[in-house]
Amino acid sequence: MRIRVVNPNTTRAMTDTIEECARAVAGPGTLLDAVTAEMGPASIESHYDEALSVPGILAAIRRGEEEGVDGYVIACFGDPGLDAAREVAGGPVIGIAEAAMETASHLGRGFSVVTTLSRTIGRAADLVERYGRQRFCLGIHACELPVLALDSDPDARKIVTEACREAVDADGSDAIVLGCAGMADLCAHIRDEIGVPVIDGVAAATLTVQSLVTLGLRKSGRGEFATPPPKPYTGLLRSFGTFPHHS
Amino acid sequence: MRIRVVNPNTTRAMTDTIEECARAVAGPGTLLDAVTAEMGPASIESHYDEALSVPGILAAIRRGEEEGVDGYVIACFGDPGLDAAREVAGGPVIGIAEAAMETASHLGRGFSVVTTLSRTIGRAADLVERYGRQRFCLGIHACELPVLALDSDPDARKIVTEACREAVDADGSDAIVLGCAGMADLCAHIRDEIGVPVIDGVAAATLTVQSLVTLGLRKSGRGEFATPPPKPYTGLLRSFGTFPHHS
Amino acid sequence: MRIRVVNPNTTRAMTDTIEECARAVAGPGTLLDAVTAEMGPASIESHYDEALSVPGILAAIRRGEEEGVDGYVIACFGDPGLDAAREVAGGPVIGIAEAAMETASHLGRGFSVVTTLSRTIGRAADLVERYGRQRFCLGIHACELPVLALDSDPDARKIVTEACREAVDADGSDAIVLGCAGMADLCAHIRDEIGVPVIDGVAAATLTVQSLVTLGLRKSGRGEFATPPPKPYTGLLRSFGTFPHHS
Amino acid sequence: MRIRVVNPNTTRAMTDTIEECARAVAGPGTLLDAVTAEMGPASIESHYDEALSVPGILAAIRRGEEEGVDGYVIACFGDPGLDAAREVAGGPVIGIAEAAMETASHLGRGFSVVTTLSRTIGRAADLVERYGRQRFCLGIHACELPVLALDSDPDARKIVTEACREAVDADGSDAIVLGCAGMADLCAHIRDEIGVPVIDGVAAATLTVQSLVTLGLRKSGRGEFATPPPKPYTGLLRSFGTFPHHS
Amino acid sequence: MRIRVVNPNTTRAMTDTIEECARAVAGPGTLLDAVTAEMGPASIESHYDEALSVPGILAAIRRGEEEGVDGYVIACFGDPGLDAAREVAGGPVIGIAEAAMETASHLGRGFSVVTTLSRTIGRAADLVERYGRQRFCLGIHACELPVLALDSDPDARKIVTEACREAVDADGSDAIVLGCAGMADLCAHIRDEIGVPVIDGVAAATLTVQSLVTLGLRKSGRGEFATPPPKPYTGLLRSFGTFPHHS
Amino acid sequence: MRIRVVNPNTTRAMTDTIEECARAVAGPGTLLDAVTAEMGPASIESHYDEALSVPGILAAIRRGEEEGVDGYVIACFGDPGLDAAREVAGGPVIGIAEAAMETASHLGRGFSVVTTLSRTIGRAADLVERYGRQRFCLGIHACELPVLALDSDPDARKIVTEACREAVDADGSDAIVLGCAGMADLCAHIRDEIGVPVIDGVAAATLTVQSLVTLGLRKSGRGEFATPPPKPYTGLLRSFGTFPHHS
Repeated sequence: MRIRVVNPNTTRAMTDTIEECARAVAGPGTLLDAVTAEMGPASIESHYDEALSVPGILAAIRRGEEEGVDGYVIACFGDPGLDAAREVAGGPVIGIAEAAMETASHLGRGFSVVTTLSRTIGRAADLVERYGRQRFCLGIHACELPVLALDSDPDARKIVTEACREAVDADGSDAIVLGCAGMADLCAHIRDEIGVPVIDGVAAATLTVQSLVTLGLRKSGRGEFATPPPKPYTGLLRSFGTFPHHS
Repeated sequence: MRIRVVNPNTTRAMTDTIEECARAVAGPGTLLDAVTAEMGPASIESHYDEALSVPGILAAIRRGEEEGVDGYVIACFGDPGLDAAREVAGGPVIGIAEAAMETASHLGRGFSVVTTLSRTIGRAADLVERYGRQRFCLGIHACELPVLALDSDPDARKIVTEACREAVDADGSDAIVLGCAGMADLCAHIRDEIGVPVIDGVAAATLTVQSLVTLGLRKSGRGEFATPPPKPYTGLLRSFGTFPHHS
Repeated sequence: MRIRVVNPNTTRAMTDTIEECARAVAGPGTLLDAVTAEMGPASIESHYDEALSVPGILAAIRRGEEEGVDGYVIACFGDPGLDAAREVAGGPVIGIAEAAMETASHLGRGFSVVTTLSRTIGRAADLVERYGRQRFCLGIHACELPVLALDSDPDARKIVTEACREAVDADGSDAIVLGCAGMADLCAHIRDEIGVPVIDGVAAATLTVQSLVTLGLRKSGRGEFATPPPKPYTGLLRSFGTFPHHS
Repeated sequence: MRIRVVNPNTTRAMTDTIEECARAVAGPGTLLDAVTAEMGPASIESHYDEALSVPGILAAIRRGEEEGVDGYVIACFGDPGLDAAREVAGGPVIGIAEAAMETASHLGRGFSVVTTLSRTIGRAADLVERYGRQRFCLGIHACELPVLALDSDPDARKIVTEACREAVDADGSDAIVLGCAGMADLCAHIRDEIGVPVIDGVAAATLTVQSLVTLGLRKSGRGEFATPPPKPYTGLLRSFGTFPHHS
Repeated sequence: MRIRVVNPNTTRAMTDTIEECARAVAGPGTLLDAVTAEMGPASIESHYDEALSVPGILAAIRRGEEEGVDGYVIACFGDPGLDAAREVAGGPVIGIAEAAMETASHLGRGFSVVTTLSRTIGRAADLVERYGRQRFCLGIHACELPVLALDSDPDARKIVTEACREAVDADGSDAIVLGCAGMADLCAHIRDEIGVPVIDGVAAATLTVQSLVTLGLRKSGRGEFATPPPKPYTGLLRSFGTFPHHS
Repeated sequence: MRIRVVNPNTTRAMTDTIEECARAVAGPGTLLDAVTAEMGPASIESHYDEALSVPGILAAIRRGEEEGVDGYVIACFGDPGLDAAREVAGGPVIGIAEAAMETASHLGRGFSVVTTLSRTIGRAADLVERYGRQRFCLGIHACELPVLALDSDPDARKIVTEACREAVDADGSDAIVLGCAGMADLCAHIRDEIGVPVIDGVAAATLTVQSLVTLGLRKSGRGEFATPPPKPYTGLLRSFGTFPHHS
């Protein structure tokens, strides 16, 4: 079984961290790799960045399909391009927000999300609705660190940990969902510090994809998520029009 | 007042139709033009097409900002890239689904949507939720014509009209919302044929933008929809990184 | 095009203010006037007042229909009598709460409402549900000024402005919706003071009606909002029974 | 204990039927009477009729307060004027739609409503939302009999019974809620014919009021439902302004 | 008419209190008794306790059916076993949370619940959803007294009263719902102290059952709540398999 | 890692089938067994059966805790006793409805559930709400086979397959969720016959538990799902009171 984790931003150091966290939980029969988007923003901190990360994600999945990949993780907490990716891929595609929120729902009455900049809270709230998690999500909080500062700021671990502690207290929640793929390596530390389960979406989504492939579950090939109809594309994006059929 | 209608697909004939329908309702003091996306798909009939129409939309809005445009209409019923466009634009940006559904909500208990291919129904349903129109939207129906066939198929007008008639009967609705910008010029004909109000989102959104500009309402410049933070972009999309600030 | 703004209370000074605010935004081809209810309460501050303002509103709309008015605004934030008014009128009827909340939904993640007395908060909350604005309305706050004190109290402007500032801070909202027609003339001042867009429903509803008339959208004449069936009325209200048919 | 049932229309024959049905269930210690509205429409079949029935209801409740009535039933399935009536009355006021839907919720998974004309379905749907009955209401159906034909049409009993039978079959429901006070005397007959429980709101609301009075539950006198602030009223409705205080 | 209140825990002193509160409101023609569960926990303070109280409840209702009881109250605020009890009983079965929340919904905009230990808040929240009371329930609060301490702790009355006062202030609510059958005898005291209506579910449910029996409303005998199909039961619970049919 | 699947009914043949289906998907490092409830009903086809299966489930989980089991599956589509089981277990407990509905949510716009008797549809609908799956569940259908007939009726496979085919057609769904643990071994056959993915909750829940244990996610030990407070139990259930603490 081959699973590929797509880092939607173009920062390779972050891809390395993500790959390590995903590999740590994948089963012995799973070949897992992570790839960096070949076009788009260095980090995703706005709707603009998110929208412009999608061509890179779709290009990565098209390449994966040619290489026989069985399932994909989209490793950005905005779950960018998820619907389009599901049209392109034959196997399952899971977003890390989707997987993290689902996983957290099994651990108690409700969870808190801790994200990076407060301007990303709205997107997380939209995903809560999309995935039907309104009953479970008790609050969304920002630690106000930019994405790349999670790696470069020497106080990042402390700042995120304190934001998680405050979120649990404010919301009376049973678990923390980390709101950025760049926080994946902080998961165990925060759990040990604050004493509630902490969910990293990268690991959670990796196992969700692995489970779906194990169950042999693939989209039916009909309807909304069937392979898109081929058509002319122009300009910078013209290469996206020569769409091979693999329904 | 300058309003620009962005056609997110790359088919110029459709831009012409859209421009005509928008101009027909704009006020005497409004300078209105329509532009065609410079990159992306010839029509939008999948999540894949929609996601890949967004860079073209954002490029068009960036250009509009340099040219002093006061407000924008995104003329595809999936309202692609709306959140990102609002970050980029200083003035209002309105999607045609958003405007059409709101307009229809004033005309009775509820409306039916008639769209092109049935694979686009899901996106319309997502937008119903996003805009809080669940109480008003009584059904979403497909006429199974591809977008460009609306122009080329000699039976298109008849097929869409019959789909609208069946939708009103099935849902007991008070109005029809046309689910594709390419149907804009069918609006009056269908209304005359089936005897209920028919809403074209292109015209509706044009007037919504005009109203917002008249009211002097612009985003506050803070928070989720502030201008995105600048950062490096790479690959095909590298030009999107040199983001001028116009908060 | 003739648009009439109905002030549901009987205070003519307030009608004058409303008329001025509505005229300031109406297009050059729009004939706009405002009328004062001929029966009912001097101000609307309870469910009792609101219910008893409805006969006056309906009488005003019946008169408007005889005079060829094309559309109406109901200028009280409780949107009293809206459904009945839509049965009576051939053209569009829009409430100021309806229009203000819709307009505010285009300006960001969400808005706060600032109303007069706290006993009116419940009605505003009911309208949020009716119009499907739960995702957008982040809070409803009272400034505890009675309606007529908005005009007579020398500190009114300051009190309302401060209530708006506190509401934005408490809710983290992107815009303010003014919760009383009597606040219409405070709109620009508050926007300048607190730096977020402020929506006056009188102006917003005027443009919504103007847009609907421009689009040629009228109810279908069938179903729930068809002209009411004529029947005997007795007592004080007997004149309401001789209902002319203009379906 | 004194309970008064207010018939919001001006048809005395209907008041008599209502009074009989209410008395049949009231307890031995309850003095129950029914009164006819002194102004307004002969029957309620539109939003217009409903709005114009409210002054008559409020006048009846004001009189009741002077006479020491302990609680009230509003005997029209649109529950007209309920919020205003609760401000005016010191004791409980219950609408028959409210009581019928709640009562039906105890009898199984869900109920169907059968009302008179299809133009009244929308109002019933609004009340389903207001009372939080969306989980329980499986359908709302019209028998297309005008209100007064329930009494005058010799086939009325048969027509309503068949509409109820079809509703149960179509919705898979466990109970029928009768959607008009004028159907109160058909309740037992329909139950016997179709074999599911049938709820008449007049009887249900009478017992709800009786229970609330027995429990000694009255509004607190503060907040949204406190006695309305007194103020000048003009025109036909000027007598409504001299509002005595009984907080 | 015979009504039986089932105390789902095994503490007889609590049954006595419950019986007294229920009798105080029952009508003159109602024979009311209360019974103690013959198996299960001494008090219900967890999902575990609640689940294990259900066999005792069902045994009590089976016995009641043999004795000709017309309707039942389940006197624990978690409303344990309600669906199963409705299958077993021929007449109505009402939970005290169900009845209390319904009753409170008639008294204003919304209510607060005050329960015992904070670990029971989640169950109360689930019931708010089940009964469609999200619009009415403004908050759920714990006083942190164990159930049996309501009787044994000399400060219990004061602690619960203060928790109610704080709940009303925090939520801006119009009424208090007592979140435990063991609080039934505190109802009048708290109302007098804090000046808002206070609802005890035991009394409320008793009157709801009495009303349903008066109305002659019984389940239809078909569908989801029909008598369960008989089948072998084994182990400790084998006596539950010999299920007599009384559909 | 030790995972235990609990069959809540007392039919050992069904336990064998369940165990086989669960083992087929468990990872190489997972020790998986299935156990049969030691008390309760031979099959679960009513709220009564379901409620009376819970003591057997809780006894099985208590035994599992003594034996060092890491996580549990409750293998009945009503997810009986889930909250109580989570209080008792230190590791994760997952219901098959919960896991199946979540898994199906990744495979397209929405799924249909096919269950046994129509009287179980209501419980499935309740779980749809509890897990926030309203957006995803497009219909719940019964094949009208009793649970044990799935094994004994020679036409069972055909009947269930046809019910699934009709459900997909009626709902326009992308996947089937099998609504009974006794259907687990039909999964591959139905998928091959009708051409859409088919989800067996036993396999899905097994992998969900395995993932949670792999991620090291356990409840925090505080709050609603902490170990229940010990207390006296009496009657048939007295052994449930001697509750060992393993917080």
